Amino acid sequence: MRPTIDLPLVVDRGCGVPLAVQVAGQLREAMRTGGLKAGERLPSSRHLAALLGVSRTVVTNAYQQLYAEGWLDGRHGSGTYVADGALPYDRPAARAAEARPAVYKEAAPPGVVDLRPGRPWVLEYDTAAWRRAWRSAGEAGPDAFPDPYGHPELRELLADHLRRARAVPVGAGNVMVTRSTSNGLDLIAATLLRPGDRVGVEEPGWRAARRIFASRGAQVVPCPVDEQGVIVEALPDDLRVLYTTPAHQYPVGGRLPIPRREKLLAWARRTGAIVVEDDYDAEFRYDVAPLPALYGLDPERVVLLGTLSKSLGPDVGLGWLVAPADLLDAVAERRDQLADRTSGPVQRAVATLLERGDLDRHLRRMRLEYARRRAAIVEALGPYVRGDTAGLHVMVPLPAAVVPGLVRQAGERGVLVDTAEAHHFGPPRVHGLVLGYGSASRADVRRGCAVIRELIPPEGV
Amino acid sequence: MRPTIDLPLVVDRGCGVPLAVQVAGQLREAMRTGGLKAGERLPSSRHLAALLGVSRTVVTNAYQQLYAEGWLDGRHGSGTYVADGALPYDRPAARAAEARPAVYKEAAPPGVVDLRPGRPWVLEYDTAAWRRAWRSAGEAGPDAFPDPYGHPELRELLADHLRRARAVPVGAGNVMVTRSTSNGLDLIAATLLRPGDRVGVEEPGWRAARRIFASRGAQVVPCPVDEQGVIVEALPDDLRVLYTTPAHQYPVGGRLPIPRREKLLAWARRTGAIVVEDDYDAEFRYDVAPLPALYGLDPERVVLLGTLSKSLGPDVGLGWLVAPADLLDAVAERRDQLADRTSGPVQRAVATLLERGDLDRHLRRMRLEYARRRAAIVEALGPYVRGDTAGLHVMVPLPAAVVPGLVRQAGERGVLVDTAEAHHFGPPRVHGLVLGYGSASRADVRRGCAVIRELIPPEGV
Repeated sequence: MRPTIDLPLVVDRGCGVPLAVQVAGQLREAMRTGGLKAGERLPSSRHLAALLGVSRTVVTNAYQQLYAEGWLDGRHGSGTYVADGALPYDRPAARAAEARPAVYKEAAPPGVVDLRPGRPWVLEYDTAAWRRAWRSAGEAGPDAFPDPYGHPELRELLADHLRRARAVPVGAGNVMVTRSTSNGLDLIAATLLRPGDRVGVEEPGWRAARRIFASRGAQVVPCPVDEQGVIVEALPDDLRVLYTTPAHQYPVGGRLPIPRREKLLAWARRTGAIVVEDDYDAEFRYDVAPLPALYGLDPERVVLLGTLSKSLGPDVGLGWLVAPADLLDAVAERRDQLADRTSGPVQRAVATLLERGDLDRHLRRMRLEYARRRAAIVEALGPYVRGDTAGLHVMVPLPAAVVPGLVRQAGERGVLVDTAEAHHFGPPRVHGLVLGYGSASRADVRRGCAVIRELIPPEGV
Repeated sequence: MRPTIDLPLVVDRGCGVPLAVQVAGQLREAMRTGGLKAGERLPSSRHLAALLGVSRTVVTNAYQQLYAEGWLDGRHGSGTYVADGALPYDRPAARAAEARPAVYKEAAPPGVVDLRPGRPWVLEYDTAAWRRAWRSAGEAGPDAFPDPYGHPELRELLADHLRRARAVPVGAGNVMVTRSTSNGLDLIAATLLRPGDRVGVEEPGWRAARRIFASRGAQVVPCPVDEQGVIVEALPDDLRVLYTTPAHQYPVGGRLPIPRREKLLAWARRTGAIVVEDDYDAEFRYDVAPLPALYGLDPERVVLLGTLSKSLGPDVGLGWLVAPADLLDAVAERRDQLADRTSGPVQRAVATLLERGDLDRHLRRMRLEYARRRAAIVEALGPYVRGDTAGLHVMVPLPAAVVPGLVRQAGERGVLVDTAEAHHFGPPRVHGLVLGYGSASRADVRRGCAVIRELIPPEGV
């Protein structure tokens, strides 16, 4: 049955508002007021375009914006649906507060193998170094005038770390201390974007990135990637910002080759876009040395975001943002206006870890361990594995039809996995499993991969 | 000379887009593309309304939105101007990175008396307690799965603190650990608001609040206050959220009386609005016990925000958000999506301060000290001082014409002050000085007030 839409949608070519914005606005209003309900199927873009007498691109753009804002759900792959819980919170109600909502992702219970990506292994930290760091956090008193750029000593130490680990010719003057990659992205969005600005995000890509941009009023544009990374030829010319992961595409796993990096920067210079380079797990490569950060190739056009989240975990709350001085000043001004900052004691603790070489030692130790876990995956799933010899996850491409059953069966056998589908915001174009080895020991990685191997159908290669 | 506007502004009544949104959009575009330049004066709302053939309210609403977004500057009191730096950052340029931008508000240099409000006194902290707290931060290792609600132990301790200090009948299930009041506001905005939703902010009021809401795409509506707090009769019926400071209005200084609290909640129940209660300095009252938090009167309609910023300073990075369980769940889900969190070690340190009574002891000590500083202000400026016997600032109403000269002369004599004008986002309606006593010793408070007393003209009462 072809879904039709029982709503009085109209477009007006004379009022100066882009047609896609008009369509998105009317659909949003319908979902907000209950004219469209959670789970309801929307017409195909082709069908709705014909009904309204507009081009299909208009409807596709409207749908993409609503996907990005969280109103629509296209993950089922077979149509566009109003998302569950799309209606913004409306009526507070008394409820048992002990009920733990589904959102809370906790560590897997004992006996369960957690191959979901995104979390590092934090059990083998250096207890003495960690305690020393937090002791040092209390050595200076509370501060009534926090610096939006961060502590000068830590900025120096981070610049030094970036020069050594990422071959980036950067001084402390270009470094801001943030809390995380998401904090850096949000600051860039709050500084650079005006409502309706178009922002490119890799597709598939990091979910939080598109939500952060969309929640700042940006129109988020999915930019397809292949096994090497973002496809430069497919980038539209009207992006204000492009979010990309050139060191290790998340989640497909490619490393952007040099010629493509040059093409990307030529595109940015030509169009005036700012490229945001998320360097989230660049410290972890197990075969060759990492490519220097994109930032080094054009420090006028690129913002580099780094984080401790993939080394010491997201809970510490420390990251960095590297940008041209003028942009950094604009970000600092905006940050100050929004009363956003990085905890001072956390900055002192991390400065101690950097100063004493504790972070470097931890990275070296974990690099060895992760390389072994990755080898265990390759041993078990060899021909299926895609992605560079790097980072904390691999990708296992599979036919779309196979994925949901496999995820369910793996779960029944105590193995938690993630999918490529879940990292899309339009209809999925890449299918398969995303397997992380940050949250599982080497033995568990072996055990989990053995289960997955058994579940992959022979025609799944 | 009456300013005219040399721009092709048009409104279209047929396209379904509110007229104020059309006007704001066209002005924004003109500022973005350089048709309107920084410092340029806009026509009065009356004049532009006549030019466009719309009601004056349309233009006023459009201007208010642009004020809130930071495009316009009305602080001079005599017209509406395109703000300096209104143009979003566009062209990165190589520049000396050492240059410290104007935004960075540091502690006043020695010899200068800093009577700017907003910062607490952090020099007299308990060194041993502080060190012990940060030592405890390192006692647990890094965490790969931070809980978006915060650490359960700290939520219990904060609930206990709120029951004792704010007479709020609240359990840990209604408490989320945030980083700050601004973090809590931003989470509420990101959870509840859709582009174009209208949000009320007290006028005059906390600058960051309106910027946080505006930067999430809300239409910010200034809601006038008098010496008792927000004027309930003046609240429009279509607000999704109202931001208010009932314990101690910032910056005018009133405490919302009980009957007005009841009226406010009746308004919220009738209109469906959520009231955000910023309880920023409620721990500091020097005459009578503080009124219980508004939250206690209607836990279904009120979100309470608290912070350590006014006790141990903004640098620690810890606050709390109290809300009905359903709303709290919605905020936690949104927070998780945006990868926003509070540093775990910071939570452990603050839990130690609460658990051992260190924060209570600090609050008691500072209450005595602030009461004395406030008494010094009243002694020097008695008849001029307005505002409750509470918090960390007073208000000194003065004729508008007097204020700029007084601020300049005080600065020349080494006394930094803030103005009521600076806390407006529309044309100022309250005039005078805002004097904080968090950043100056008692001796400095006396010295600064003596200078100000000399500068107030006799007709300034």
